[in-house]
Amino acid sequence: MILTVTPNPALDVSYRVARLAPGTTHRVRSVRERAGGKGFNVSRVLHEMGIATLAVGPVGGVLGESLRADLVVSEVPHALLVVDAPTRMTVAVVDDDDATLFNEAGAALLDSEWDKLLDLVRARLPEASALVCSGSLPLGTPEDTCARVVAAARDAGVPVVVDTSGPALLAAASAGADVLKPNAAELREVVDSADPLAGAERLRALGAGAVVLSLGPEGLVAVTGEGRWRAVPPFPVRGNPTGAGDAAVAALANGLVEQSSWPMRLRAAVAWSAAAVAAPVAGSVDVPLLRKLHDEVRVETL
Amino acid sequence: MILTVTPNPALDVSYRVARLAPGTTHRVRSVRERAGGKGFNVSRVLHEMGIATLAVGPVGGVLGESLRADLVVSEVPHALLVVDAPTRMTVAVVDDDDATLFNEAGAALLDSEWDKLLDLVRARLPEASALVCSGSLPLGTPEDTCARVVAAARDAGVPVVVDTSGPALLAAASAGADVLKPNAAELREVVDSADPLAGAERLRALGAGAVVLSLGPEGLVAVTGEGRWRAVPPFPVRGNPTGAGDAAVAALANGLVEQSSWPMRLRAAVAWSAAAVAAPVAGSVDVPLLRKLHDEVRVETL
Repeated sequence: MILTVTPNPALDVSYRVARLAPGTTHRVRSVRERAGGKGFNVSRVLHEMGIATLAVGPVGGVLGESLRADLVVSEVPHALLVVDAPTRMTVAVVDDDDATLFNEAGAALLDSEWDKLLDLVRARLPEASALVCSGSLPLGTPEDTCARVVAAARDAGVPVVVDTSGPALLAAASAGADVLKPNAAELREVVDSADPLAGAERLRALGAGAVVLSLGPEGLVAVTGEGRWRAVPPFPVRGNPTGAGDAAVAALANGLVEQSSWPMRLRAAVAWSAAAVAAPVAGSVDVPLLRKLHDEVRVETL
Repeated sequence: MILTVTPNPALDVSYRVARLAPGTTHRVRSVRERAGGKGFNVSRVLHEMGIATLAVGPVGGVLGESLRADLVVSEVPHALLVVDAPTRMTVAVVDDDDATLFNEAGAALLDSEWDKLLDLVRARLPEASALVCSGSLPLGTPEDTCARVVAAARDAGVPVVVDTSGPALLAAASAGADVLKPNAAELREVVDSADPLAGAERLRALGAGAVVLSLGPEGLVAVTGEGRWRAVPPFPVRGNPTGAGDAAVAALANGLVEQSSWPMRLRAAVAWSAAAVAAPVAGSVDVPLLRKLHDEVRVETL
């Protein structure tokens, strides 16, 4: 089972409107709600691909209960910790041209609640073949929170993928995460280097096993102890890029479990990611497209 | 006590962002939630002005409970009917330049729930000195719903102010509402006349006692059985126009109770309305400004 940890879940609300025009009033044509947060999206993709997963995260308030209800309906296995802080919301306003996103920051958890969340993770680690810690931290969260999750996994001998940003990304590197998956902007923000390969090596020097950089439609670059590779989709895929990174993380975690070669992991990660762009919502992949893409992804040594 | 009925309440969520840019991702700087819906805003204003009120409306789901909690905190007296349909949300995205609104339509109530809401209104009418029915109807609501509220009030000898639009506005006129308060666009939509005075007379011909047209910064026009007047604020007031109409409705209902002259009612309605523009949130008025404005409003006979 691949255990995912989402430190800052959200109820993702999506509004369809005719056309977004700032300063005006819009009639919302349709409303969709779903359990959101990057780790939950990773679990969704794994579940859709038939891979056992367990989604762990804190929930609070009335939106936390809506989030739980959606996980139940989606049949994504989950273990949620009820906390005082109300679960945040994100709103995506979608018109024919664009998606415009509004992300609440999320409220701080108590230190004792982080301890309980760690206990929950530790209790499930014996069943886990890999752990994913994904997404932002609520405002005011101790910077070592991600690192503590990484340390717990390492203590249990479970490999870890971390997808986060800022100080938490640096802390996860220092704690020895097996794979980090920043995008180019997130990497630049923490390593102060314009060269992404040099930046990735900085994270490895801190303690990370490998760094997989996501470059949007340009694919992925892996900087590892075994070599460096770039993988590129065979053709551009149009659609909703929200959740593409989460599909890549799901594939990378699965690659860790399968102990497949880095070129094979990257091939899968690019195919899953592009197939997520083609699917209408985050946390979902277009499976027929995935199969078509998989063998056509170009992987080259750098 | 002035009884307000809100057929389609909403939890109003307000997001502060740096600058709204369509197609991008926004970090929400602050989040505010409050019980919304036009009738609830009318009750808020009355409560703030020290006038006894009772807010009646249906609530459902988790957002309905958030709405109730906010009414409790705000100390606005209320009597809510719990229904199956979940209470809707509206989202206002506010930056330095503009407010951009996203209004969910609201889910339909069962016919039996409308009957219960009417029973709740009838049970409180003996204590009421006026009734206000304000705001939209959820999608799929029988068009005579507002008219049934008007009829119940008339049966109890209680004067009624209605602020709604579309077929419900016509039905409220035919049911004999004492005062209707459309804005210019809402009037044009139902009477098919470019002349607002002629349009207002059409609503009176259907059965309405008086029509008060709101013209935004241009003030109000009243078309009544006793004459026609226009009232204009003495100077432009900058701020948030959301809720200005609700403050005008609150003043008009209070004028009905006090049986003041039409020029006095209009003077108060313009002053309350402008003082609501100056207040930061809908359902609130800037009381010192209100006092300053009140005597300076210009009222002229048409």
